[in-house]
Amino acid sequence: MKKIGVGLIGTGYMGKCHAMAWTGVRPAFGDVPDIHLVHLGEASQELAARKAAEFGFAKASGDWRDVIADPEVDVVSITTPNRFHAEMAVAAFEAGKHVWCEKPMAPKLAEAEAMLAAARASGKVAILGYNYIQNPAIRHIRKLLDEGAIGAVNNVRIEMDEDFMADPEAPFQQRHEAANGHGAIDDFGVHPLSLISTLFGRASRVMCDMAKPYPTRRTDAGEREVEVFDIATILLRLANGASGMIALSRTAWGRKGRIAMQIFGSKGSILYDQERMNEFQLYLTSDRATEQGFRTVLTAPHHAPYDRFIPAPGHGLGFNELKIIECRQLIGRMRGEATVGIDFEEGILIERTVDAMARSFRESRWVDVA
Amino acid sequence: MKKIGVGLIGTGYMGKCHAMAWTGVRPAFGDVPDIHLVHLGEASQELAARKAAEFGFAKASGDWRDVIADPEVDVVSITTPNRFHAEMAVAAFEAGKHVWCEKPMAPKLAEAEAMLAAARASGKVAILGYNYIQNPAIRHIRKLLDEGAIGAVNNVRIEMDEDFMADPEAPFQQRHEAANGHGAIDDFGVHPLSLISTLFGRASRVMCDMAKPYPTRRTDAGEREVEVFDIATILLRLANGASGMIALSRTAWGRKGRIAMQIFGSKGSILYDQERMNEFQLYLTSDRATEQGFRTVLTAPHHAPYDRFIPAPGHGLGFNELKIIECRQLIGRMRGEATVGIDFEEGILIERTVDAMARSFRESRWVDVA
Amino acid sequence: MKKIGVGLIGTGYMGKCHAMAWTGVRPAFGDVPDIHLVHLGEASQELAARKAAEFGFAKASGDWRDVIADPEVDVVSITTPNRFHAEMAVAAFEAGKHVWCEKPMAPKLAEAEAMLAAARASGKVAILGYNYIQNPAIRHIRKLLDEGAIGAVNNVRIEMDEDFMADPEAPFQQRHEAANGHGAIDDFGVHPLSLISTLFGRASRVMCDMAKPYPTRRTDAGEREVEVFDIATILLRLANGASGMIALSRTAWGRKGRIAMQIFGSKGSILYDQERMNEFQLYLTSDRATEQGFRTVLTAPHHAPYDRFIPAPGHGLGFNELKIIECRQLIGRMRGEATVGIDFEEGILIERTVDAMARSFRESRWVDVA
Amino acid sequence: MKKIGVGLIGTGYMGKCHAMAWTGVRPAFGDVPDIHLVHLGEASQELAARKAAEFGFAKASGDWRDVIADPEVDVVSITTPNRFHAEMAVAAFEAGKHVWCEKPMAPKLAEAEAMLAAARASGKVAILGYNYIQNPAIRHIRKLLDEGAIGAVNNVRIEMDEDFMADPEAPFQQRHEAANGHGAIDDFGVHPLSLISTLFGRASRVMCDMAKPYPTRRTDAGEREVEVFDIATILLRLANGASGMIALSRTAWGRKGRIAMQIFGSKGSILYDQERMNEFQLYLTSDRATEQGFRTVLTAPHHAPYDRFIPAPGHGLGFNELKIIECRQLIGRMRGEATVGIDFEEGILIERTVDAMARSFRESRWVDVA
Repeated sequence: MKKIGVGLIGTGYMGKCHAMAWTGVRPAFGDVPDIHLVHLGEASQELAARKAAEFGFAKASGDWRDVIADPEVDVVSITTPNRFHAEMAVAAFEAGKHVWCEKPMAPKLAEAEAMLAAARASGKVAILGYNYIQNPAIRHIRKLLDEGAIGAVNNVRIEMDEDFMADPEAPFQQRHEAANGHGAIDDFGVHPLSLISTLFGRASRVMCDMAKPYPTRRTDAGEREVEVFDIATILLRLANGASGMIALSRTAWGRKGRIAMQIFGSKGSILYDQERMNEFQLYLTSDRATEQGFRTVLTAPHHAPYDRFIPAPGHGLGFNELKIIECRQLIGRMRGEATVGIDFEEGILIERTVDAMARSFRESRWVDVA
Repeated sequence: MKKIGVGLIGTGYMGKCHAMAWTGVRPAFGDVPDIHLVHLGEASQELAARKAAEFGFAKASGDWRDVIADPEVDVVSITTPNRFHAEMAVAAFEAGKHVWCEKPMAPKLAEAEAMLAAARASGKVAILGYNYIQNPAIRHIRKLLDEGAIGAVNNVRIEMDEDFMADPEAPFQQRHEAANGHGAIDDFGVHPLSLISTLFGRASRVMCDMAKPYPTRRTDAGEREVEVFDIATILLRLANGASGMIALSRTAWGRKGRIAMQIFGSKGSILYDQERMNEFQLYLTSDRATEQGFRTVLTAPHHAPYDRFIPAPGHGLGFNELKIIECRQLIGRMRGEATVGIDFEEGILIERTVDAMARSFRESRWVDVA
Repeated sequence: MKKIGVGLIGTGYMGKCHAMAWTGVRPAFGDVPDIHLVHLGEASQELAARKAAEFGFAKASGDWRDVIADPEVDVVSITTPNRFHAEMAVAAFEAGKHVWCEKPMAPKLAEAEAMLAAARASGKVAILGYNYIQNPAIRHIRKLLDEGAIGAVNNVRIEMDEDFMADPEAPFQQRHEAANGHGAIDDFGVHPLSLISTLFGRASRVMCDMAKPYPTRRTDAGEREVEVFDIATILLRLANGASGMIALSRTAWGRKGRIAMQIFGSKGSILYDQERMNEFQLYLTSDRATEQGFRTVLTAPHHAPYDRFIPAPGHGLGFNELKIIECRQLIGRMRGEATVGIDFEEGILIERTVDAMARSFRESRWVDVA
Repeated sequence: MKKIGVGLIGTGYMGKCHAMAWTGVRPAFGDVPDIHLVHLGEASQELAARKAAEFGFAKASGDWRDVIADPEVDVVSITTPNRFHAEMAVAAFEAGKHVWCEKPMAPKLAEAEAMLAAARASGKVAILGYNYIQNPAIRHIRKLLDEGAIGAVNNVRIEMDEDFMADPEAPFQQRHEAANGHGAIDDFGVHPLSLISTLFGRASRVMCDMAKPYPTRRTDAGEREVEVFDIATILLRLANGASGMIALSRTAWGRKGRIAMQIFGSKGSILYDQERMNEFQLYLTSDRATEQGFRTVLTAPHHAPYDRFIPAPGHGLGFNELKIIECRQLIGRMRGEATVGIDFEEGILIERTVDAMARSFRESRWVDVA
């Protein structure tokens, strides 16, 4: 593979993040082919052209099908709103492209299953945008767990909180419609599930509670009912029997990008918080008793692939650089390497878990994850 | 009331804490009667005499009934293992004494109900040892909630974690027998419930999961089954409809006295952690947007009754001083003042909530709190 | 020694703290004689009587000489403003009493030297109120340093900051007069010096800068010049050659009781902050490289004498309990035990260091400590 | 300006950082010309060619003069060891190129002055690599200071600590030779000085102490004397009269990229630590007294130019992205915009301050900054 032709659909939050990842992956890693920013698709030709100029793409189109049809495009980044993922991804696979699709797969499980079927049929690389798992801190936590540093894990808690839905005075948005999903469990819940998947394997059973802090929101035509749930709390069991809990809120004032994880084992504990993503905490019972304590470990070059970005410890990666790492993993897959990353096979388990959560809440009972 | 005659039954962890509280309450508060340390009861005369000398009690007895029968005793501190609380408290009320009983009330709900009945019949003061609620930080949080500083609360999470059961190699203890309770939900769960009771009123519904990280433990006669649950996670709804979660673990390596509370409202948030009991964190949306953040507020003389202990801010109270504050509240009740504190009327609601949790776990469903 | 008769002069911040210490030392430690609160002295008979009632002293006097003359008094707590220390302490020694005097010794070095001479002549116990060094955390840090846990110390930084002088609108006080000392270097500086003395031995050379953030303050008669310095920063060398720095401010908004210490050695580092006095941080190069980090160690029963107060780890001592520990050390000295504490022999070195700082600033040069 | 031709000399730590900045600036900011990576220079043709391939440069040369002579090159990034800066920068200006030179300017003040003279003579843009000042957090702190949020600043403390020289067993390196500078004061000291320059203006007087924790280090030919000082502590006065302190250590075990700043004013305080570069702390006396505390503010889109990287708050920029911001500022200057950044005119004041520090230490006295 001498060069990679990139198509990008969508230029919002994640679209720009993908653009920066495709641009930054080569100088950071050095071991990747030439990256050609071939074709950018947006909702209108005008917007597409403007963004192509900004991001450095050669071609621009107001029709996403042009991007997928472009023979120079090898891989398509899909960063549009979730409800478009399925159609676009299926079309991309059918056109013989690799797909890098933002999470979650789709608002409805059936759509996600169709995406997986198309990916399988194509034989192409199909990677989801679960960038948090690419953090050198998270990767090192995985290594510590694998080597048994904290013994057998018996309890896991993950919280994901932000506050962009916290203002009760903010107006009704499209995201408050049920057509866009359940609310916190798919918008946020998939991130903790990606961490669980990466670190512990799958959840086997879930018991979910959901809440609407603000049941109605204002529109120009008066108050309208909010159809999704901004808060969810989930009891769960991991496949290995350990107990767990996920707490989610999009109305948690003061939380901006918190994904706080607590992992308790028979020989120690690990803590992590995405708001301070360049550190993790480790407690080991093998330390002398009178000096046992949570160590705040700053990530450093010895926590791969931090070294690809900075040769000095504790200087700090950023959120966007996680996407660059993810991009490098994607490229590795395209070359047949075994890399870290959540593909559609693994991603469908996350979608099924979300589906089980929704069912659990509707039926007010524990539900096994299919 | 010119003086108070004190009886103390039990001299372990909490027994000594009561002794220090009874000794320290007068110099700290200045406004209380003479405290006479009258009679100390322990399991043997020898132990009772030794502890009486240490703590400064005038009389000592190997029979707790002597303490209760002592006419010089006005109030009895009951700090023995939980399974003795009911018998002792009932006897004390029947002898016309005020009772200061450590939490929880009793291993079985029926016993707790009997304690309440005896308290009611006696008309005496009946206070439980929920010292965490006496922290000036917690009291100030209550004041902030009452004045609406963070608006309407929509989500509450409380975690209580320690690690004294975390070592899988530690032997079987009496506390692992079902006769002593359920495990985390009564040993620990009552503390978060005391905070909920103080800050928000009661929980209305609970859904509880419990887990045994180490199902058996060694005895001299081989492995024995552990009958209690060191881990519990509870979904709950408050009476006002807000959603909540309690997570409990006695096997959380590295946690020593953590009671971490997160309170999210429509106009801000409050955080608290008992391991750093002299501070709390407050986020207010009324701060200018570009400088909003969690404020770490150190307790100070303007957070009553911190001023009774130290005239300078940020110098720090200790765990034992919370018991001194509790003692002052008890004395206030004995004088007919309305004071902060969980009496048997309020305490029985906590016991009923624990009972509902246990039932919820057994029956694997949401249970309304009686 | 069957009992100890206590005299107390002064009932302000530290006076009450001593009263609580004398009251609390027996139930906490158990191994001390009966403590008799004999005689309390204050500026007026009325105030003395009121405080004696509050604190539980048997006698009260408006003349401190009555306290010192009282034959039932074995030891005198001197907690009056600094300018009275010398006269009172000398008189107490001359009356054959042990002395527990609050820090610093006196505003002028000559007075402090006189206090030391009187102490030596009397042969009585002469202890200064440097309570921060009694913290189990600090004691454990000393043990770690002594055992070489962090190797050879090469750099020490101590900051002590509060904000009670930070308001530029606050009026002129007596403390702003030069007669009461230099400002930050004696009011605050002695605390960092007590830590240096306890942990590393003496400072050999100092280079001091001082500053007046608010050169004048209002009085009823107009603006008046502030004669003391609220800010001081000191370069220093320890006797072992290591470099150090002390930074002091009484005008540091937001700091309430901060004494932050950083100790860097050849094999690790130690951090401590008095505002979170129940923890310290330790970095060890002997930890595996990829998991090195500052451990936050919560104090616990294995950090003596924490165990005398609470049998559970991480539950937290308070500022007042440090004074109880100090009181126990004093009693130990009275019984001929070798205990931790800064006596007048060690205290005079602190006073001489302060004096050297003042000289250094006046003469704008490095000054050797006598 | 339709496009910018970039030359890069040096491909180490900072060389790669510049390469990533030149690559990333366009997709992040969108408003910059095409960036052409024209010519890369390294010590050998082989290394240059390899790095050019990695970073995406079109041409490569083993002679840096080729880069400077290249007519397609508009601006030269100089990222070689400090001792080469002067010769390269002067040559670049003489060739009519803009210069982006890493800090510090040069080991000797005379060289730095020559660089400034050449910059002035050329009229070209001359920017230094002080990336920490580009952090949205630092920029916002500057804004807060400018608007008087914390009143008049009276005390500033800045610490910069890492531990890459902390191992006493590590061998002698070229950096331990005096020819490469003084040690901490130029290697590290310039960063705190860049913050002082950006936030407060210049330092007027300095009093510096320096220390060598490990006076000799091993070589293959035995122990060799270390000629530089890894530790330095500096008292200083700002031009406005405020007192300050800088503490520097390259032997501070556990510190990885700490630049901790404390700013105390008459109405509040600000804290910052580079190891947690996505947050700062703010204390305001205008908050209600009972809820005053340090707010931990996470940077967010409203802290420009965070918004150019991530539309969501609290998600975190990385160290490398500060260099991207710096690059954007450089491009702005090339277009005649007034942008944030330390040019040679401002940079020479930093070099003179370092020179004054060195003199102060040699002569053991306060030195005015020229």
